[in-house]
Amino acid sequence: MNITSIIGTGLIGGSMALKLKEKGFTERVIGVDNNLENLAQAKDLGIIDDALSLEEAIAISDLIILAIPVDAVKKLLPKVLDLVTDFQTVMDVGSTKANLVHTIEQHKNRKRYVASHPMWGTENSGPSAAQHNAFTGKAAIICNPEDSAKDALELVKKVYETLEMNLLFMDADAHDVHTAYISHISHITSYALANTVLEKEREEDKIFQLASSGFSSTVRLAKSHPEMWVPIFRQNKENVLDVLNEHISQLRKFKSALEKENYEFLEELIVNANRIRGILK
Amino acid sequence: MNITSIIGTGLIGGSMALKLKEKGFTERVIGVDNNLENLAQAKDLGIIDDALSLEEAIAISDLIILAIPVDAVKKLLPKVLDLVTDFQTVMDVGSTKANLVHTIEQHKNRKRYVASHPMWGTENSGPSAAQHNAFTGKAAIICNPEDSAKDALELVKKVYETLEMNLLFMDADAHDVHTAYISHISHITSYALANTVLEKEREEDKIFQLASSGFSSTVRLAKSHPEMWVPIFRQNKENVLDVLNEHISQLRKFKSALEKENYEFLEELIVNANRIRGILK
Repeated sequence: MNITSIIGTGLIGGSMALKLKEKGFTERVIGVDNNLENLAQAKDLGIIDDALSLEEAIAISDLIILAIPVDAVKKLLPKVLDLVTDFQTVMDVGSTKANLVHTIEQHKNRKRYVASHPMWGTENSGPSAAQHNAFTGKAAIICNPEDSAKDALELVKKVYETLEMNLLFMDADAHDVHTAYISHISHITSYALANTVLEKEREEDKIFQLASSGFSSTVRLAKSHPEMWVPIFRQNKENVLDVLNEHISQLRKFKSALEKENYEFLEELIVNANRIRGILK
Repeated sequence: MNITSIIGTGLIGGSMALKLKEKGFTERVIGVDNNLENLAQAKDLGIIDDALSLEEAIAISDLIILAIPVDAVKKLLPKVLDLVTDFQTVMDVGSTKANLVHTIEQHKNRKRYVASHPMWGTENSGPSAAQHNAFTGKAAIICNPEDSAKDALELVKKVYETLEMNLLFMDADAHDVHTAYISHISHITSYALANTVLEKEREEDKIFQLASSGFSSTVRLAKSHPEMWVPIFRQNKENVLDVLNEHISQLRKFKSALEKENYEFLEELIVNANRIRGILK
């Protein structure tokens, strides 16, 4: 393929660009970003070949990838679709899908768009956080494939195959339910844990000195930026609230077991949680 | 030093033995374990030189390290202290300290014991999980050093220096408060998160397929065994409950922000949690 535009040259867009170029999927990568510092850095790092304006980039691209926060995708996607022809394909990589596909379901160029979500990320951001083999072995979800043109769908499938991801197909609503469980709640847990420790442990140097690898791994996601996560929680509010209520009630069981000194119940709760060992490697 | 006995040849005892032997801190390592399978495996893996009974091992050892669950330490430590002379040193590596030092404060050989806690662990257990450089760069806490004989204290300090750990000194009560914040609550969070996902996500294959690195890292500790963790929560009940109550109230803030669609408040909560980035590398 000839030209790919990456709208948003951060962690995800940057990591995709690196691999797509490296594997010869695309000859040229154009970067589009309001953040001129990120854009310059992406060029310095060899993530993009050129920087152009949105309109200039769309005019010459075969594939346009939106890799920006989900609120920005929601605003920008209709405008991008306004500008594309039947020979161009548009995709995004956001962590919410139902709200977005609803927004553009009546768009005349809906078929040029493929809704998808590569399930990878880190707590870091910006082009300097981009990684060459970020996505290998992880899941990529394509939503509502029947609403996309066949050639657009094939191209996006090829993108994820090039990224060495495991493809799954799912309804956008089901996607948002599953990601609330598997991804979104982990972030809330981690943010709340960080706030708990920051509230209780007034001596910050103690946190630094004592932090074990267990604490660091549980609290890692709490470093993730609000620009990305507030819009995700907002767009997936109902599902996130549903799972958050369940999580609070699960924590209350631990609280009750301790308060009542019911250590058999505490053990049961832990034995049940241990089942995750059989599910995750 | 001549002979070190490791009571409990699992993850922690095994990892300590490997390093202490490798760095020439001790000439010979004796393993003591009720679990004969672990004992045989520890010998096969070169973690211990010989397996002996508790009494035989204590009779010939310069240093005795208890690396067993904290309830077992509480039972066994007085018996071990009964058997030692003024030329021997006893230490444990458990994650709770206040309850334990209280148990043996009147023991005639109290001074031969040094209370300490190396802040490292993984979700795995048994000698096969032992690692050569497990402790390097992590914190080791010595509690109530004034209650130990000077030579015993010096020996235990040398153990942690050999393990390449950063030494901290703390009152046993303060230790239990800090570990509740930094370590124990992370485990409860992780267990409760696993239970949440297992409750809500009935399709276990979906968890397996979709699990992102974020989810895996947040839920990793949920694989930890109840034999180790129930006694820790039990012995540190008051502190753990205190921090668990705070954690539930922090999660309620996220719930309230979402329910009221107060996204500025949601952003504030996340920005506050992001402070952890400046504290943890």
